[in-house]
Amino acid sequence: VSGALSIRHRIEVEYNGTPFAGWQRQENANSVQHVIEDAGAQLSGGKTHCYGAGRTDAGVHALAMTAHIDLAKPMDSWAVLNGLNALARPHPVAILNAAPVDEDFHARFSCTERRYVYRLIRRRAPLALEAKRLWQIPYDLDAKAMGKAAQHLVGHHDFTTFRSVQCQSKSPVKSISEILVTEDGPVIEVRIRAQSFLHNQVRSIVGTLERVGAGRWQSGDVKDALEAKDRSRCGPVAPAHGLYFEKAIYDAG
Amino acid sequence: VSGALSIRHRIEVEYNGTPFAGWQRQENANSVQHVIEDAGAQLSGGKTHCYGAGRTDAGVHALAMTAHIDLAKPMDSWAVLNGLNALARPHPVAILNAAPVDEDFHARFSCTERRYVYRLIRRRAPLALEAKRLWQIPYDLDAKAMGKAAQHLVGHHDFTTFRSVQCQSKSPVKSISEILVTEDGPVIEVRIRAQSFLHNQVRSIVGTLERVGAGRWQSGDVKDALEAKDRSRCGPVAPAHGLYFEKAIYDAG
Repeated sequence: VSGALSIRHRIEVEYNGTPFAGWQRQENANSVQHVIEDAGAQLSGGKTHCYGAGRTDAGVHALAMTAHIDLAKPMDSWAVLNGLNALARPHPVAILNAAPVDEDFHARFSCTERRYVYRLIRRRAPLALEAKRLWQIPYDLDAKAMGKAAQHLVGHHDFTTFRSVQCQSKSPVKSISEILVTEDGPVIEVRIRAQSFLHNQVRSIVGTLERVGAGRWQSGDVKDALEAKDRSRCGPVAPAHGLYFEKAIYDAG
Repeated sequence: VSGALSIRHRIEVEYNGTPFAGWQRQENANSVQHVIEDAGAQLSGGKTHCYGAGRTDAGVHALAMTAHIDLAKPMDSWAVLNGLNALARPHPVAILNAAPVDEDFHARFSCTERRYVYRLIRRRAPLALEAKRLWQIPYDLDAKAMGKAAQHLVGHHDFTTFRSVQCQSKSPVKSISEILVTEDGPVIEVRIRAQSFLHNQVRSIVGTLERVGAGRWQSGDVKDALEAKDRSRCGPVAPAHGLYFEKAIYDAG
C-alpha cells in the first residue's frame, strides 16, 4: 500500500458469488461491480468506475479478482483499501489490497493470464458447512482419469464445443496453458490457466471431465467432442457455485 | 450403514452453528437438537429424542458431532440417514452416517474423548468467503509461542481460571490430553483433546493463547493464570464462530 495520491487504483477482490447476479453491473440485480462502484462513489464523493480482469457469472466466487477503480478524486491506497472495505459491508466483498496505477493499466486489457479453480466434492450427505461452495457429486469420481482426459484440451484449439451459445467472442479459438486435476480426500480441484476464456468455457470443460471421472465418457470421447466443434457434443455444464476466479496475471507488472 | 431395524441409532452430524442458539433444545430459539428431533419425529411418526456427545454454544460449528437418536419405531439406518437429511432441510445440518446401536450406548455418557479445533486467521481485509468461520485477527500472531505456552495447560489441573462463571460442572478439575497449534499460511489451528471439558474452557484457553501470540502475554503468564485458579486472570474469551466440535471418541466401540 503506497501513500501516493491517485485517481486509478489496482485492487484485488475476494467475493462470495452466492448473492450476486455476477460481477457485471446490471439493471435490477445486485452485482459485485455495483457494490464496489457504489462504495467508491461514497468514498470519493462522485462517479466511480470499476473494471475487473474477468466477468464472472451469477454464483461464481473469486479468491482474488484483479480490478482497477477510477475514483472521483485522487486518494491514497490505504484510504481506498479501508474505505471500500468499510463501505462494501455487509456484502460478501473484500478488498485484499490496493495500489496506485497509471492510466495505461487496465485490469481487463492488460491481463496476460487468468486462472480459475473449480472444486468438486464426492459425498452423499448434504453440505452443512460448505453449501454453495463446491459441486457435490453423490458417487465416486476417478480424478486421475479426469486429469488425463483434460490434456486433450490443453493448447491452441477451436473450443466451439466448450462455449455457451450466448458467447459473444468473435473467435472460438483459445489457448489453454494448463489443466491440473488434484484430489485431497473427497475434494477434487481442477485448475485451468489461459490468457482468456470463452463464456462458460471452464464450466463446460469441468462438466465434461466429470463425465470422464464418473466412467461414463472415455478420455478419447473428450478429444472427439473437441474436434467435432459442435456445442451439442459438450457434457453438461458444471454449476456456477463450484467455480472460483483464482488470480489474474499481468506480465508487464 | 446396516439393514438391521433399531429404535436407537448412532449418528454423526456436521453443522454450521451460525443460525443456531446452540446444540441444545430451548424455548423460543432454534437449535441443532430441535432440528434433528423434529426430523426424527416426522420420519418415525412419533416422539423422538436425540443426545449429543457435547452441547455446543450458539455459533459453534461441528465437523462431526456424535449423537444418538431414539425413534418412535424401529427403522433401518439407511432410511434414518436419508430421511433425517431430507427432513432437516433447509437447515445447515447434515447427517454424515448412521448405525444401529444398543440401548447401552449413550452419545454423552459413553464418550471417552472429545476433540475440538479452533481456527484463527491473521488478516486485515474482511472475510468474504469465510465469514463467521474463523476468528479474524488484524495483526500478526506467533503460533510457535502459542503452542509452547499451551503446554502449561496439558495434564490434570484445576481449570477454575478457564471456565465460565455459569459452568455447572461440580468440579473445576479436568485432564487435557493434548493441545496442538499448527499454522498454514495466515490460518492458525488449535486442536484440544480431553475426556470432557468445562463450559467455555476451549474458548477461554484460545483467547488466552491469542494474547501470547500477540506478544502481550509471556508463556509463564499462562502458567501463573492457571495456578491462580481465578476466573478474572483468564484472557478474553475467544468468539464462538472460530470453534468446531471435531470428533467424539468411544473406546468401547
